[in-house]
Amino acid sequence: MAKQIKTAISPTREENYPAWYQQVIKAADLAENSDVRGCMVIKPWGYTIWENIRKNLDEMFKDTGHVNAYFPLFIPKSFFEKEAEHIEGFAKECAVVTHSRLADDGKGGLKPEGKLTEELIIRPTSETIIGASFSKWINSYRDLPLLINQWCNVVRWELRTRLFLRTTEFLWQEGHTVHETREDAMEETFKMLDVYAKFAEDFLAIPVIKGEKTESERFPGALHTYCIEAMVQDKKALQSGTSHFLGQNFAKASNIKFQNKEGKEEYAWTTSWGVSTRLIGAVIMAHSDDNGLVLPPKIAPAHIAVIPIYRSDEERSKVMGFIDKFKNKIKDLRYNDCRVRIEFDDRELRGGEKVWYWIKKGIPIRLEIGPRDVDSNSVFMGRRDKEPRDKISIKVDEFIKTVNSILDEIQSNVYKKALTFREHNTLRIDEKEEFYRFFTPENKENPEIHGGFVKSHWCGNKECEEKIKEDLKVTIRCIPLDAEIEKGKCIYCGKESNKRVIFAKNY
Amino acid sequence: MAKQIKTAISPTREENYPAWYQQVIKAADLAENSDVRGCMVIKPWGYTIWENIRKNLDEMFKDTGHVNAYFPLFIPKSFFEKEAEHIEGFAKECAVVTHSRLADDGKGGLKPEGKLTEELIIRPTSETIIGASFSKWINSYRDLPLLINQWCNVVRWELRTRLFLRTTEFLWQEGHTVHETREDAMEETFKMLDVYAKFAEDFLAIPVIKGEKTESERFPGALHTYCIEAMVQDKKALQSGTSHFLGQNFAKASNIKFQNKEGKEEYAWTTSWGVSTRLIGAVIMAHSDDNGLVLPPKIAPAHIAVIPIYRSDEERSKVMGFIDKFKNKIKDLRYNDCRVRIEFDDRELRGGEKVWYWIKKGIPIRLEIGPRDVDSNSVFMGRRDKEPRDKISIKVDEFIKTVNSILDEIQSNVYKKALTFREHNTLRIDEKEEFYRFFTPENKENPEIHGGFVKSHWCGNKECEEKIKEDLKVTIRCIPLDAEIEKGKCIYCGKESNKRVIFAKNY
Repeated sequence: MAKQIKTAISPTREENYPAWYQQVIKAADLAENSDVRGCMVIKPWGYTIWENIRKNLDEMFKDTGHVNAYFPLFIPKSFFEKEAEHIEGFAKECAVVTHSRLADDGKGGLKPEGKLTEELIIRPTSETIIGASFSKWINSYRDLPLLINQWCNVVRWELRTRLFLRTTEFLWQEGHTVHETREDAMEETFKMLDVYAKFAEDFLAIPVIKGEKTESERFPGALHTYCIEAMVQDKKALQSGTSHFLGQNFAKASNIKFQNKEGKEEYAWTTSWGVSTRLIGAVIMAHSDDNGLVLPPKIAPAHIAVIPIYRSDEERSKVMGFIDKFKNKIKDLRYNDCRVRIEFDDRELRGGEKVWYWIKKGIPIRLEIGPRDVDSNSVFMGRRDKEPRDKISIKVDEFIKTVNSILDEIQSNVYKKALTFREHNTLRIDEKEEFYRFFTPENKENPEIHGGFVKSHWCGNKECEEKIKEDLKVTIRCIPLDAEIEKGKCIYCGKESNKRVIFAKNY
Repeated sequence: MAKQIKTAISPTREENYPAWYQQVIKAADLAENSDVRGCMVIKPWGYTIWENIRKNLDEMFKDTGHVNAYFPLFIPKSFFEKEAEHIEGFAKECAVVTHSRLADDGKGGLKPEGKLTEELIIRPTSETIIGASFSKWINSYRDLPLLINQWCNVVRWELRTRLFLRTTEFLWQEGHTVHETREDAMEETFKMLDVYAKFAEDFLAIPVIKGEKTESERFPGALHTYCIEAMVQDKKALQSGTSHFLGQNFAKASNIKFQNKEGKEEYAWTTSWGVSTRLIGAVIMAHSDDNGLVLPPKIAPAHIAVIPIYRSDEERSKVMGFIDKFKNKIKDLRYNDCRVRIEFDDRELRGGEKVWYWIKKGIPIRLEIGPRDVDSNSVFMGRRDKEPRDKISIKVDEFIKTVNSILDEIQSNVYKKALTFREHNTLRIDEKEEFYRFFTPENKENPEIHGGFVKSHWCGNKECEEKIKEDLKVTIRCIPLDAEIEKGKCIYCGKESNKRVIFAKNY
């Protein structure tokens, strides 16, 4: 029997994956449930991850010609009724504002008053309200393309919520663009999908598969929905971003017309695309381990935690004096076009407690500094991409010289680990029986971690897709954009197919 | 009779100040009213001003030890009922969510369904919902101070709205902090007031008066409300930021207790403070002129507009070739810790039209580049702090060397102009008759631009304050923090007073 190793997070991933996820969030102090049904409070450590995501992604949007704007939180009910599929998709889960004030209810409480003549919906997404503005802004082909993005909160009245992955209110960005031609709009749709894939891989260190959604998973009102799909450590898929080609559907619903070069009026072509605070859930689930959060340095709220280690007042002043000088040497360090973010932990706690505190928070580099380190002008470095006990002594000058490459190495190791995991858990299956066996949990007591991504043939028939979903809770995550044309037989019905799609359980 | 000079904005400030304000916003393409009652659409040029405000202010918050977090948009009705004055202040103007979905109404439309067991209020401010979290986060004096800020949208159901100054939904930041002692909380309240004042003066180029609000203008539930007050060009006051000392009121309402150093449980002391998109309204009203928007460089969406001037294809290629080289030379220029933001305007429009376009948008520096400028390796520079026709030729190398000091000079000139205007329109009045005459418009046809800040004695009695408000629509904007102790008589009732306060009409 292997020696029992105690982990900082209990239960472990193997023991209970959903509970492990909650505990990682709690131990890193990222977020918590609020008193409002399904809404979360994003705590400072979690919110700073979002700030870093926002900052870096925003730069990528601006580099591709987009500008930010802000549109109303409220959508008049009548706007919502304009696009039939859109209603269908969102009407069942939206917050409705019906009154404009509270008044004394005569029982010591308050009751709603000032009934609105038209109900307002809190935006679940903003195609219809932004479309109303766009129809005013656009007159001629000279006004196109119009490339707008909005960072905001949205509300979808989800029944079952889970921190970051699915909450009633969440933060996101939604891009909305308008184009002269179908080709231009398609180009934009793919360009933004590429931006998302690049961001996921380069910043979040999560390898993703780019693909198209099947009809049943399409955005309500879109002609094509493209997505990036990540694998997390229970081998499920996590949709991490979507880019929609809306054709002329929303242009027609919102009357977005322009005069073309020939002087004729035409409906425009639109796209929309978004990622949300769900990305934080993806980061947690993709990288963290049984000791807590693991963060890719590029989006970590801080890069380095400096932990003084001492046992007496004398040692304390020796160590703190050294740290003061060290502070001065490292204050101008830069990484990823930003100042290196450093936390100096001078709380009144034992050194060991602090070390574990920072491991659980996912800090990329820990520097323990005790009297012996002072004597040798060194720091004792632990890295979150290595085992907690795997620490090395490194001279201060050497550390400063190499900190950038250390952070890059951590970023790259975190990515490689996730990629290896995905590769290890992705397979091709051509036999229906094998497919069903693969997706049926062996261990009834812990059914969470099993399965993976399966590349199988699919005939394109909605019914086969639905049957598999009914039987196994497995869905087609996407039709990969790079899928090879290859003759095969549908994994469900055996009819001819020319492409493999990705099947998986998902969030 | 003076020669009639045509201005880019019509009407002028003199002719009709409120209409001028709307026209400046329209001409600069900052924002517009939406189809949702009282809600605005903040267009890219306006939103980028907000991004710059947010970025710079956020750095000041972080430098003073604050961290950002995010709390729910929704406040359960029962939370709202916890603080009596707070209800009183906000219940009359809040959006109430009563249902969680829309369903077919049988008449081809949709009706609200899924009635909530408890109504939710869209946050008009977040003391109560944040307090609920704080009460869980805080156990011991070791958890204090807790210094949190939130950037978000809020909703107040205002009856009369005006772009940026008063809208149903607006963007803002709200700081919420918790302290061990009254003294610590007071120190924080003043510290953040100072941050606001410094930001207004250094970044927005608006001189402000720091002062305390009288009881009638206090934040609902606060013990003391401090503010910064700016004067805009119709000589009215515009409250531009507030910092509230909440005492233990909200700690008691939300049960925020901590164990003190002696091991006893105590209620904590809290503060809150905020500024909003109203600051953009302040910038527009304080600095703009009859040719449109004037922007302080530090928050301008762009610093320089480069406008090619040519009359033939030959001239065009000569000019554009020069601009390409120029682009390369200036691409790494930095100002105020950021890249200098440059717009190259290569639209198919006449040069003169472009020049006026950028004047109306408030761009600090315009560079016109024509064939003759190419020959002399110069640019033809216009500055928004000077008259439109007041332009100079400047060698490219000289421009690059001095661009930082030019931007600093514009920033400083814009500030000085606003300061001079305020000084010119601030006076001391000791006679009631003179006070009344001063605040009564002379010109009945244009009653907008008149008055100013009047420093008069006030006895401290609420009734005197109310009578003046009734008679003249003039209120006490604040009791300046730097008011000298000086014997005098209340401007209304003649009773003894030892301080002058600021009287003005206001937004």
